[in-house]
Amino acid sequence: MKRSEISKNVVRRLPRYLRKLDELIKLNVERVSSNELGAQMGLTPSQIRQDFSNFGEFGQQGYGYNIKALRSEIASILGMDKGFSVILVGVGNIGHTLIDNFNFARFGFRLLGAFDIRKDLVGSPIQGCPAPIMGVETQEEFISRHNVDIAILSVPREKAQAATDRLVKAGIKAIWNFTDTTINVGDSDIKVEDIYFSDSLLALSYLLLGDND
Amino acid sequence: MKRSEISKNVVRRLPRYLRKLDELIKLNVERVSSNELGAQMGLTPSQIRQDFSNFGEFGQQGYGYNIKALRSEIASILGMDKGFSVILVGVGNIGHTLIDNFNFARFGFRLLGAFDIRKDLVGSPIQGCPAPIMGVETQEEFISRHNVDIAILSVPREKAQAATDRLVKAGIKAIWNFTDTTINVGDSDIKVEDIYFSDSLLALSYLLLGDND
Repeated sequence: MKRSEISKNVVRRLPRYLRKLDELIKLNVERVSSNELGAQMGLTPSQIRQDFSNFGEFGQQGYGYNIKALRSEIASILGMDKGFSVILVGVGNIGHTLIDNFNFARFGFRLLGAFDIRKDLVGSPIQGCPAPIMGVETQEEFISRHNVDIAILSVPREKAQAATDRLVKAGIKAIWNFTDTTINVGDSDIKVEDIYFSDSLLALSYLLLGDND
Repeated sequence: MKRSEISKNVVRRLPRYLRKLDELIKLNVERVSSNELGAQMGLTPSQIRQDFSNFGEFGQQGYGYNIKALRSEIASILGMDKGFSVILVGVGNIGHTLIDNFNFARFGFRLLGAFDIRKDLVGSPIQGCPAPIMGVETQEEFISRHNVDIAILSVPREKAQAATDRLVKAGIKAIWNFTDTTINVGDSDIKVEDIYFSDSLLALSYLLLGDND
């Protein structure tokens, strides 16, 4: 099956499988059946077998999955072995949070640099980045020279579209959007993934309400 | 249909509908058909009709949906009219980001206070909160006195479980988990919603890889 034909729900489950397998590897577990995996993840065994079957043959009937092999297959399906390059656009609280807490290298990404429009930030060192914060006027040339794959967009909401337009013009391939607002990449085929905090809080609120309300 | 029987995928789409409807309201659009809504959201009209039918009758065949009425129904289904109370546990970068950028009141939540274990932070005012930052030793009494619904957990990863244990003991009802690690609420029926940044970045990476790799 073509990658683009795989359903979004399956793709969304792959990182969850990865997290669970990493947990099992930490516990020195070597094999796991779809029954066990399902029980631990709240999925049916047939759902799990069906998910994996989209990408080929990963297990042998009756023997379960070799966890390390399965983990490596999933990492590869997710592009973790491609070394995608990343820049941070907008060094505010959320940018700092990501750089402080998120281990890009662990997931196979290379964080190349951080940009900000505020001149007083330019030149300051930033943890996890190979270079100090750069001015936004050097961004386009940087993206082109390093053939940057992904921009983390973490500018204030009202600057989101202007910053997006600059990234589109510079030839970025993907935008990870933390601005909590919709961005428009025109008719380019730039991939966009939005983080909407409200979606997650409202899902929690739905659960909290329960059946009796 | 009971709320707990509605599929997760439907529940996850509700906040997306809400965002789209808010966009249309801003543009002064009054009615929308499932065809138009589907085209704008990348969903089929029948999917949309099926989603809404889980919660009753929202539209009239051939007339489309009254946008304001539909918006209000969805907001109510999501618990936005309940005034759920929220506290912030751990005032780091992510906590500040949320408080600075996220308008809790807009979604019907009441932010009551922020707690931290670091004594030097206690007493500092914090934007959006009715009270200065409080010490963690007063947290349990506060939760009980105000009957707090939701805790935003934004402590460092290595303190996540200890902070969770305190919240469980204090009788919190839901945890919005930003620690990027799994937390265990034992056999309580506390609802947990995790924000895993890596899941989102890996979904983007999958898209970026495309069909030819």
